[in-house]
Amino acid sequence: MYAENFSNEIEIRKNKIQSVIRRSGADAFLINDNVNLFYTSGRVFSGYTYIPAEGEMIYFVRRPVGLLKENLIYIRKPEQIPEELKRLGIVMPNVLLLENDSLTYNESIRLSNIFPEAKIENGTPLIREVRTIKTPYEINLIRESAAHHSSMYRKAPAVYKQGMSDIEFSIELERLARLHGSLGLVRIFGDSMEIYMGSVLAGENADEPSPYDFALGGAGLDPSLPISSNGSIMRPGNTVMVDIGGNFTGYMSDMSRVFSLGEIPEKAKEAHNVSLKIQSEIEKIAKPGIPASDIYDLAFEIAKKSGFEANFMGHRQKAGFIGHGVGIELNEAPVFAPRSKDILAEGMVFALEPKFVIPQVGAVGIENTFVVTADGIKKLTQCEEDILPLN
Amino acid sequence: MYAENFSNEIEIRKNKIQSVIRRSGADAFLINDNVNLFYTSGRVFSGYTYIPAEGEMIYFVRRPVGLLKENLIYIRKPEQIPEELKRLGIVMPNVLLLENDSLTYNESIRLSNIFPEAKIENGTPLIREVRTIKTPYEINLIRESAAHHSSMYRKAPAVYKQGMSDIEFSIELERLARLHGSLGLVRIFGDSMEIYMGSVLAGENADEPSPYDFALGGAGLDPSLPISSNGSIMRPGNTVMVDIGGNFTGYMSDMSRVFSLGEIPEKAKEAHNVSLKIQSEIEKIAKPGIPASDIYDLAFEIAKKSGFEANFMGHRQKAGFIGHGVGIELNEAPVFAPRSKDILAEGMVFALEPKFVIPQVGAVGIENTFVVTADGIKKLTQCEEDILPLN
Repeated sequence: MYAENFSNEIEIRKNKIQSVIRRSGADAFLINDNVNLFYTSGRVFSGYTYIPAEGEMIYFVRRPVGLLKENLIYIRKPEQIPEELKRLGIVMPNVLLLENDSLTYNESIRLSNIFPEAKIENGTPLIREVRTIKTPYEINLIRESAAHHSSMYRKAPAVYKQGMSDIEFSIELERLARLHGSLGLVRIFGDSMEIYMGSVLAGENADEPSPYDFALGGAGLDPSLPISSNGSIMRPGNTVMVDIGGNFTGYMSDMSRVFSLGEIPEKAKEAHNVSLKIQSEIEKIAKPGIPASDIYDLAFEIAKKSGFEANFMGHRQKAGFIGHGVGIELNEAPVFAPRSKDILAEGMVFALEPKFVIPQVGAVGIENTFVVTADGIKKLTQCEEDILPLN
Repeated sequence: MYAENFSNEIEIRKNKIQSVIRRSGADAFLINDNVNLFYTSGRVFSGYTYIPAEGEMIYFVRRPVGLLKENLIYIRKPEQIPEELKRLGIVMPNVLLLENDSLTYNESIRLSNIFPEAKIENGTPLIREVRTIKTPYEINLIRESAAHHSSMYRKAPAVYKQGMSDIEFSIELERLARLHGSLGLVRIFGDSMEIYMGSVLAGENADEPSPYDFALGGAGLDPSLPISSNGSIMRPGNTVMVDIGGNFTGYMSDMSRVFSLGEIPEKAKEAHNVSLKIQSEIEKIAKPGIPASDIYDLAFEIAKKSGFEANFMGHRQKAGFIGHGVGIELNEAPVFAPRSKDILAEGMVFALEPKFVIPQVGAVGIENTFVVTADGIKKLTQCEEDILPLN
């Protein structure tokens, strides 16, 4: 199930987490979020990972039955955790970190009550900070996702058939992703965020505002899920932007490509080239030490100078960022936004998505996933970047 | 976007919610969960629904831009809500309900701080109680989902090709669901719950324990999502249980059917017939006033008498319930479990899923969605219930 070097990998992650626990002055971190359970154990289980500031991590598992692993204790409910810790001779924490940006209020209170002597602090920003810098093992998994993702995108034009609606094209692309090994589920941080596999935006629908904080919107098929395709027929003169998430390994890559139907206006091609220029200019300057806000500013300046400010990152509704970290979740740090405090560092992995919405035509632009190396950034998603015609 | 009678429908829902607000002694309910935003407005938006114990609901919207609607106020952040309420002459609540079983700890604290004078109470059980009894409008949407769902299941055998792996079959079924109008996303209550579209369990994989609290498990393709198909080839002598969720309207139906490959053991057929018998015996007694626990007990007794107790609701790992309410979420009340306090009432909609896992063979059993009528229950999902051979 795990790669051979996995216990070594878990040790690396444990050390990273313990270092931020100690820096924060806490004594332990009790993990319950599936994303962080996966990060700390290599698999999703129902239960908790207890991480003391020093020593071994302990997995408290409710389900599944039958796991054989070191440092694993089966429990029925979290109230058993303190007695099990005592049995192991582990001192109760004075300061305990909980994932207070993802635990529900009642679950957080329940866990607090189990440690009545402990001061509770929010550990979510700390574990997200740790996860921002990927280990070589994680980068390999994202590289693997990106390879499947790219291969899938190369075959995208082949699944288009004339007269298709946007949703019919989307369905064939989803199937293509699954046949390339996509696990389907896309994990996102933030309670109000919901997504199915991604979005396929044709023509005017790209200009439809969505409630979700993604780069672009779309009306969706139903008001219960107002995002992505809306069932409209794709017409000559339209662009189609495909932005299907790539979870092939438990780690996400993210990429978008644009296709055209018939002849599209010169303006759309120009705006697309501005996106490619933004990407290449960013590739020139991005490296460890560069603030994510500088990268946003550079993109915005190029968009503005080229005369496409009104179309940049949306038209009727605009996204406030041009890129975001990816990992186990689709939206991790760093965030490329005007007021972002994130600074690029080696091992970060992010998607850059400078995009434009041209009314009556559709969305254009590019999205690729990059890893920050010692002296620059390297593109992980590889596929033709020009607008490709669908026939 | 909405049916003509939708403002009438919203009025009905508002009255139901206001009635539980008053019963609980609270003055208002501030809603933030997408599921409940959809319930209270008919669409998902980024923002809040404020429901006073009496008077009009007010929608505080961050995104999308461009909504035109009565009682709608655009805000940038929830801290603006009190001033807007004052502007409307609405008295600040002394007791405020928040969704403390789904809001994150920090979001709940943030909203509490906006109403520093108010006592905060947990509204999640109340709004879930309200949503348990569906309105005729909602029942129609579930009926519509169930019709598409049934139609999709009838075509399931046609997408099977000999030599397929379980995941290949699953992918074709997912595509079939989408072509029938599935929105893809399956909403589930509970932070630790994750699902893609559902599960397709072939042979031994049906016996693989999962961390998730679904009726059956499966190893999944990857430890990051240990549920459903694991990529194994389906072999003669195996059963395949298809349990793809049906979100065709924002409202879910749920159904499972079993297919066989080659000749399957008599034992599997017998157990399947026990499931059908459990279903028909439940159909005889289920009606308003019957405790959900009685229905569980009846199912368990029949399973036990037939000699399949060890296989009932799983083998290596067992589910503790045989059915669950469905609605906007896949897991609503009532819950059919031994200690459930739920009592059947007219307008409830639920899935019944008595199932067995036969080692080396796979899962058998049935799942259908029912609505509780004035004097019984009525099946909404309609499709052949015997084990069908795949060729």
